[in-house]
Amino acid sequence: MKPLGPIPPYFEELHGELAIGGRTASALVKEAGDTPLFVYSRDAITRRMAELRAAMPDRLRLHYAMKANPYRPLLEFMADLVDGLDIASGGEFEQAREAGYLPREISFAGPGKREREVFAAVRAGVTLNLESEGEAERALEAGKTLGIAPRLAIRVNPSFELRGSGMKMGGGAKPFGIDEDRVPVLARKLVDEGANWRGFHIYSGSQALDAEALIETQANVLALAARLGKEAEVPVPHLNMGGGFGIPYFDRDSALDIAAIGRALQERFADLPENLRETEFALELGRYLVGEAGVYLTRIVERKVSHGLTYLITDGGLHHQLAASGNFGTVVRRNYPVAIATRFAEEPSEEVNIVGCLCTPLDRLADEACVPQAEIGDLVAVFCAGAYGASASPSAFLGQGSAHEMLV
Amino acid sequence: MKPLGPIPPYFEELHGELAIGGRTASALVKEAGDTPLFVYSRDAITRRMAELRAAMPDRLRLHYAMKANPYRPLLEFMADLVDGLDIASGGEFEQAREAGYLPREISFAGPGKREREVFAAVRAGVTLNLESEGEAERALEAGKTLGIAPRLAIRVNPSFELRGSGMKMGGGAKPFGIDEDRVPVLARKLVDEGANWRGFHIYSGSQALDAEALIETQANVLALAARLGKEAEVPVPHLNMGGGFGIPYFDRDSALDIAAIGRALQERFADLPENLRETEFALELGRYLVGEAGVYLTRIVERKVSHGLTYLITDGGLHHQLAASGNFGTVVRRNYPVAIATRFAEEPSEEVNIVGCLCTPLDRLADEACVPQAEIGDLVAVFCAGAYGASASPSAFLGQGSAHEMLV
Repeated sequence: MKPLGPIPPYFEELHGELAIGGRTASALVKEAGDTPLFVYSRDAITRRMAELRAAMPDRLRLHYAMKANPYRPLLEFMADLVDGLDIASGGEFEQAREAGYLPREISFAGPGKREREVFAAVRAGVTLNLESEGEAERALEAGKTLGIAPRLAIRVNPSFELRGSGMKMGGGAKPFGIDEDRVPVLARKLVDEGANWRGFHIYSGSQALDAEALIETQANVLALAARLGKEAEVPVPHLNMGGGFGIPYFDRDSALDIAAIGRALQERFADLPENLRETEFALELGRYLVGEAGVYLTRIVERKVSHGLTYLITDGGLHHQLAASGNFGTVVRRNYPVAIATRFAEEPSEEVNIVGCLCTPLDRLADEACVPQAEIGDLVAVFCAGAYGASASPSAFLGQGSAHEMLV
Repeated sequence: MKPLGPIPPYFEELHGELAIGGRTASALVKEAGDTPLFVYSRDAITRRMAELRAAMPDRLRLHYAMKANPYRPLLEFMADLVDGLDIASGGEFEQAREAGYLPREISFAGPGKREREVFAAVRAGVTLNLESEGEAERALEAGKTLGIAPRLAIRVNPSFELRGSGMKMGGGAKPFGIDEDRVPVLARKLVDEGANWRGFHIYSGSQALDAEALIETQANVLALAARLGKEAEVPVPHLNMGGGFGIPYFDRDSALDIAAIGRALQERFADLPENLRETEFALELGRYLVGEAGVYLTRIVERKVSHGLTYLITDGGLHHQLAASGNFGTVVRRNYPVAIATRFAEEPSEEVNIVGCLCTPLDRLADEACVPQAEIGDLVAVFCAGAYGASASPSAFLGQGSAHEMLV
């Protein structure tokens, strides 16, 4: 038997079923028309945001990194909850605009921005987090062509990394950002050339569950920004401190202690270096805001036994849930939190392998999981499906089609 | 420095550039309108099919497993080259129909067929490769409801595996097919209940480069089919022997010796068990037919140095080339064959990391690769992009959009 990850605290049982936003899984599927279905809970997101606001210093701005989940109704919903939006492509910019975000609320990071994306961002007044000297040239050029002072920040490739993070984005050679030692010259140049200078973006890792590591990294980020500003003799109007707040996916993962992070940040903010006292600070969070608010519901279409092992085969799979299948940046596959949504009140009674419908052994949703006995027609819930699910999976694979999505 | 995989033999140099189907990479991109672009070569596919036909016994039918590449023009092109089509979903059935395939040329495997997919397949006269006793019941029921004798075969979960295959699909508990020992009873029942009995489907692995392993597996498949037919006292009108023919992706991979496989199969066919003498044999190939015919072209949008390492950042990435990035069923990432398409005649002169444009360290196309010095605007070619590329990648990720595709 292999353990399942911990079910996020935002869901209840109703009439023996998993309930999301006060409605049963069956009722939600009925409304959506079919499985597979991603359900995102407004209530879960609202509660998460409230917890975060309560824990963090008031002056800290919270940005949403839409790469986590660009589903339009969710993107629109986030607009009222956050203080800014972080995008990673021209395509995301279009989606953000259509969802009602104003360009000045948006910052754009990405190591491979096309020239036309740079141009469009400058024209619209989006803040560009510059990832190279070349991109800086192109942005300044676009500003000159358009007669606009481009809103420019520098994404720094920090020499430190976020300890224990799922993905390291700093500490050595990286395609992201500009190495620390080359930043001051460029910052000075941007200011001298009349850019609308916005400051720094320092992102050192993602999916960390260790508050101490995040506290240490945030201290490093503040110190680095202060040093770079000083060396360049430029102000730091804005500092995007990155994100990195993780969520528990796997057995023995514990929720991040945001209270500790908030306290540490409060202390830092009370004792800022001179050149950061007027700075606007922001955290850029995606997964942490929406990841645990999403549930993927898929129906069991087959129950079979092979060599003594029971398989529950669903109508979903890795084409919607690549990360949960263990095939996205994972070395050793572990089970996400998974449950039989239509038997949410029942005790686990058998060991099964829950798989997707694709003709590939990669398509696994839960290995050797102990769950209540389920039959064809029952619904399986995969939790932590609110981030890097639908949009980060190969939905065209094997002609299975996209999943439904709904915000409740 | 890390080695690159071997470039498939179907491409040439023209005016200093990579040429596909007699046209330069630049010209193809110009015609497509933009990068990233998948180019699939008719000529490469035709040559591959001719080599295969020449090597294999005449009586062996060659099927195309469209999961490898469902791009419509390619699917239509394959129709004239192959003897049948293997599908894995109702969605693929729709695509196949639109591409002009007849239902009787099609067989449908997949462990999680929905009831409506079974019904539609029976109604249309598609052969169902049954993966469980439950599915058999549903297919027979559909036949009764429709007054049709359903075309049914049994997918067997063999007790042997394909040695050295990239993905094992047999040899122990699996969600695929029906365990050997339960097959005879079911086969007998299908015949007794008046199904249009088609025989067996035995698929034991994929992406094998060792001819001896495939020869051994094919011998096992023939023996198993003969034994199952005998035990069930049913004929074996058709035997889908699976596929498993691999292509070289990585350094030191060698092309599969299909001549050896063909000779061995010829010998087997000359000495078949009594109950297989009239059998129609088929191989089900996807990757082997089209994988090496495809090239992914992406443009360098940034050239930068970080901590002494040079990065070439392209406008493509894992959202189109998940497998090449090393994130699809891979434990240790290795480089696919990659080249600077616009400097195809030049000697390698520097070591670079070629990455995609996504804001994630997972987005790698070539690590520590030695290539000619390339600049912004140059095109990068990723080879072996004809199978499990565009349709098997998360194209919506980070709003980057789908790649262009063309068949030349």
